[in-house]
Amino acid sequence: MTKGVDLSAIYGPVREGMSQVEGIFGELRGLARQDILPLLDQTLHYGGKRLRPALTLLSGAPFEYRPHTLHPMAAAMELFHTATLVHDDIVDASSLRRGRATINSMWGDGAAVLLGDFFFAHSARLVASTDNLRVINLFAKMLMAISGSELAQNLSTMEQRLDYDHYIDWIGAKTASLFATATESGAVLGGSGEDGIQALKAYGHHFGLAFQIVDDILDFVGQEQDLGKPVGADLVQGNPTLPTILFVAGHPQGADLRRALTDGGDAEAVKKAVALIPGTDVIAECRQIARGFTKQALKALDAVPPCPSTRALSDLATYIMSRSR
Amino acid sequence: MTKGVDLSAIYGPVREGMSQVEGIFGELRGLARQDILPLLDQTLHYGGKRLRPALTLLSGAPFEYRPHTLHPMAAAMELFHTATLVHDDIVDASSLRRGRATINSMWGDGAAVLLGDFFFAHSARLVASTDNLRVINLFAKMLMAISGSELAQNLSTMEQRLDYDHYIDWIGAKTASLFATATESGAVLGGSGEDGIQALKAYGHHFGLAFQIVDDILDFVGQEQDLGKPVGADLVQGNPTLPTILFVAGHPQGADLRRALTDGGDAEAVKKAVALIPGTDVIAECRQIARGFTKQALKALDAVPPCPSTRALSDLATYIMSRSR
Repeated sequence: MTKGVDLSAIYGPVREGMSQVEGIFGELRGLARQDILPLLDQTLHYGGKRLRPALTLLSGAPFEYRPHTLHPMAAAMELFHTATLVHDDIVDASSLRRGRATINSMWGDGAAVLLGDFFFAHSARLVASTDNLRVINLFAKMLMAISGSELAQNLSTMEQRLDYDHYIDWIGAKTASLFATATESGAVLGGSGEDGIQALKAYGHHFGLAFQIVDDILDFVGQEQDLGKPVGADLVQGNPTLPTILFVAGHPQGADLRRALTDGGDAEAVKKAVALIPGTDVIAECRQIARGFTKQALKALDAVPPCPSTRALSDLATYIMSRSR
Repeated sequence: MTKGVDLSAIYGPVREGMSQVEGIFGELRGLARQDILPLLDQTLHYGGKRLRPALTLLSGAPFEYRPHTLHPMAAAMELFHTATLVHDDIVDASSLRRGRATINSMWGDGAAVLLGDFFFAHSARLVASTDNLRVINLFAKMLMAISGSELAQNLSTMEQRLDYDHYIDWIGAKTASLFATATESGAVLGGSGEDGIQALKAYGHHFGLAFQIVDDILDFVGQEQDLGKPVGADLVQGNPTLPTILFVAGHPQGADLRRALTDGGDAEAVKKAVALIPGTDVIAECRQIARGFTKQALKALDAVPPCPSTRALSDLATYIMSRSR
């Protein structure tokens, strides 16, 4: 059921670069002390799809492909993403990710904090190594957006979390800002003009919103073995996502769930909602909203020179709507 | 009993800059969302002495004092330091720091992870804002040194932790690298020549080693109300520092403690050692070693142009030997 085959075809125009990015992870492994290796090996494949580095490379390729800066930047995007996953699993007290035990569940919160910091540090080093001040500042701005939003989300009330605009802001910061930085930095490092940079930034942002909504749909309708974690995990962890938000706002039984959530979580009512939501029309509504963002992403590509990489970006935006994991 | 008065005299040559650095923290507070403020207010004074920003400013001042880059860099050093403290408290499961409840103990590990990341992000933004590639790369290298070493320490065996060379490597990475980055970046941003940069880097490194050893001595001989945490906390948490290492290596009763620690921690034997160590001559030995590093720090200053700031750096190195908190 893996979509790996499709993706490797889409990544075709940057195949060589993608393998160089894996080489950078190999170097990181080579630099690390022996005792850290089990933790690295457990996490360096968290991302699985390598979407973020692919987006960076594909966004640079329509212009001038400069491997000595594009490759480290692409690798940095993946390492930073991995850092956020390792830290998120502490925050959510998750024990499973992609079907494997999380670092916090195996080695404790302390080791997970430090491993996340370690990935964070290496991503910063790779970004700094580009010696490109615009990209360095983009990266720093992204760090602020993501960390500020994650902290605010952690401290927010359930009422706030059940609001559509709050949700869009939240996924805009926690997910779309990383995709937008991946594409914008690729364009900058490729030497694109300002129009191309802004177009690829807009593509990455809308791609990211669509990607996260599909992720949040899959949390309800996916198969446990594809997800590698229990179905409905987000809601159980107290993080209502778009399906829940639409269900609570519009479904006859939504009021019950709202009460259960705001009252501090009636576990039975939450479980019932997890079983109920996949059969309601909120899933189709969510897909509709994601499709709207995908269309905006595709439209942004009109301003990017047509070439195999630009077509790959287009295919990628279409692919994420159909993925099952 | 506070040493605040002495320090503010030493900081005299950069008093205006220090108050501008506080202003940057104020701006950060102003940018943050309402619900984050209690956490910021609880942690922005963790550092207390503001040694790291003072070192950055004093290291820039003997050359050309350029406030628009020196001030953000100085603020970044303090914010990054705060980030590491917040994360360290998770790793050590500490409930008290400077006499106040820690973030993890009050708000949980999740909020502490995210708050640390938030400080981390803001420090990176401030460093990026200097637009100085050398300083940006210094910062990135420091992140790698600190995070790699903290992770390795977390995974190390008790046998490794009881080794003197391991200890010096560890404090070199976790503490001295931050001080060395503070002073080196100050010199770089001040426009110093290479000799001055290397001298101030060496000063910061040796200053950092001496500072950490004094810290580790105070963990045994300090007063609980000065320390703001229980006496002997490091050893109880399974992190033997220099007094313990020398005690285990040379004291007649050291073998008992070694056995207790490597056997997985006989709490009674550890408690006994915490009571015993302050009365032994290992404390004087530790001071002697710290004094050696301080001398190296002072010697490095010979290559820095004499001026009030250079004298302040010299006074600061002397001060840290005498501090009681």
